[in-house]
Amino acid sequence: MSCSRVSVAPAAEPAHTRVSARNLAGLRRYLWLRLRYPRLRVGLFFADRGAEIVVGPRARLCVGRGVRLMRDFSGHFDGVVTLGDGVFFNRGCTVVVRHSLAIGDHCLFGEGVSIHDENHVGGPGVTSLAARGFVAAPIVVGSNVWVGARAVILAGVRIGDGAVIGAGAVVTRDIPAGVLAAGVPARVVRHLPGCRP
Amino acid sequence: MSCSRVSVAPAAEPAHTRVSARNLAGLRRYLWLRLRYPRLRVGLFFADRGAEIVVGPRARLCVGRGVRLMRDFSGHFDGVVTLGDGVFFNRGCTVVVRHSLAIGDHCLFGEGVSIHDENHVGGPGVTSLAARGFVAAPIVVGSNVWVGARAVILAGVRIGDGAVIGAGAVVTRDIPAGVLAAGVPARVVRHLPGCRP
Amino acid sequence: MSCSRVSVAPAAEPAHTRVSARNLAGLRRYLWLRLRYPRLRVGLFFADRGAEIVVGPRARLCVGRGVRLMRDFSGHFDGVVTLGDGVFFNRGCTVVVRHSLAIGDHCLFGEGVSIHDENHVGGPGVTSLAARGFVAAPIVVGSNVWVGARAVILAGVRIGDGAVIGAGAVVTRDIPAGVLAAGVPARVVRHLPGCRP
Repeated sequence: MSCSRVSVAPAAEPAHTRVSARNLAGLRRYLWLRLRYPRLRVGLFFADRGAEIVVGPRARLCVGRGVRLMRDFSGHFDGVVTLGDGVFFNRGCTVVVRHSLAIGDHCLFGEGVSIHDENHVGGPGVTSLAARGFVAAPIVVGSNVWVGARAVILAGVRIGDGAVIGAGAVVTRDIPAGVLAAGVPARVVRHLPGCRP
Repeated sequence: MSCSRVSVAPAAEPAHTRVSARNLAGLRRYLWLRLRYPRLRVGLFFADRGAEIVVGPRARLCVGRGVRLMRDFSGHFDGVVTLGDGVFFNRGCTVVVRHSLAIGDHCLFGEGVSIHDENHVGGPGVTSLAARGFVAAPIVVGSNVWVGARAVILAGVRIGDGAVIGAGAVVTRDIPAGVLAAGVPARVVRHLPGCRP
Repeated sequence: MSCSRVSVAPAAEPAHTRVSARNLAGLRRYLWLRLRYPRLRVGLFFADRGAEIVVGPRARLCVGRGVRLMRDFSGHFDGVVTLGDGVFFNRGCTVVVRHSLAIGDHCLFGEGVSIHDENHVGGPGVTSLAARGFVAAPIVVGSNVWVGARAVILAGVRIGDGAVIGAGAVVTRDIPAGVLAAGVPARVVRHLPGCRP
């Protein structure tokens, strides 16, 4: 990356506040979800084309303001799910919650990110994998966390405030606040500017 | 992962045996595939919304009972494809077969898994990459194998019974039975409980 | 990979030159894009089902002959984008350009590849991540480059002619011509046959 060629682009005006065909369709999807799961009490959020949310009997949802789930988002919620204000999931993300997931304010998730708070019970055996059920553990993500495209976050991890998870990383252990973590499995690469080591 | 917070959820009743709009649409997709490729002789399987299967002239398919290809599955079959009973591909998987692919019973594939038994012929040259054709080698996956989300399985590898492939792993070499393999490229991390080292 | 089982399949006749329902729908999508962004002057290309191209005010597009953007391609173009002849993006690729992206002739991109010439400005802070804007740097990809499935190419990198990027790799630094690079982050694995070290 040659610094001489770097340019800083201003962030676009948030597209979810305009009146548009896309946003009206998102509103229709939101209302449909409320009708389908009347016991859920969630504030308004934006669900884009192809977004699919399946809510199980043990689900409790708490959704902040300005949450956007972009195209082809896939959510299977059968636990306690908390999404802070302004949380943004880019296209094609998958979130499966059987125990609990808490995400702080203003977190951004790149396209194709997967979050799973559950694991199958692997290994050979007499019973099939699908019949063995799942082992789940809570996931906690702080505020202002940016998760790069196609990263995977697995059961039981905590990610601190302001951390950056590199594209394609697989987070299998806790990541502290204010660091860049990357790789498979994800390791701390460096502290971000302005964050004490 | 704090063990004190771990919960074990029972596996859901298999959704593919209910009469539902989704399953009837899946049946329509299956019948359309049979009509389009009359020489194929495959048992009933479930193909979800957006599933796309292209069958070439050299394809031979053998599909077990209870196979499910979830949303946006993409299959390009121009070789010998064998899928065991209960094989499950979660959303957005891609399977390209030009030589052969054999998958044992009850294997589970997470969302966004790619399986390719072919490679382009890389490097610079006078002819374009697309005009150089492919080199293919068979892939064999045992029974009760669980492949994590967004993993990639490449040409010529064998994966043993009961192995677990970590999320985001790229499998370039053989993986023995009963181990957890992860990383890019995938390496054996440990033997699973109950599996002799 | 046992060499004795390797077979070489001939490349299929290019599907984009046939008259088919899929190609006619692609033509309709192309014409719609031209109508929506009349100031763009781009040659004919193929955009498959679900392809979505958003063009910003600062975008300049230069598209070669026989370019194909397969199913669910997602392009956000707000910079200078140059695609050479015969460039092929398989399904589910994401390309975000705020500064510039130049791709040479006959490059092939596997399914689910992400290209981003921009980064968020990470770390904790008072303002939200989304309000901080982006830092962008140009990406240059040579000719006859093959990028494997689900790889990610990040801001400011150059990839030389005839390089092969392994599946699932995350390219964070420059890759020279004629090599195979793989891993997270991507490193040179070996020189390709016929390429001097």
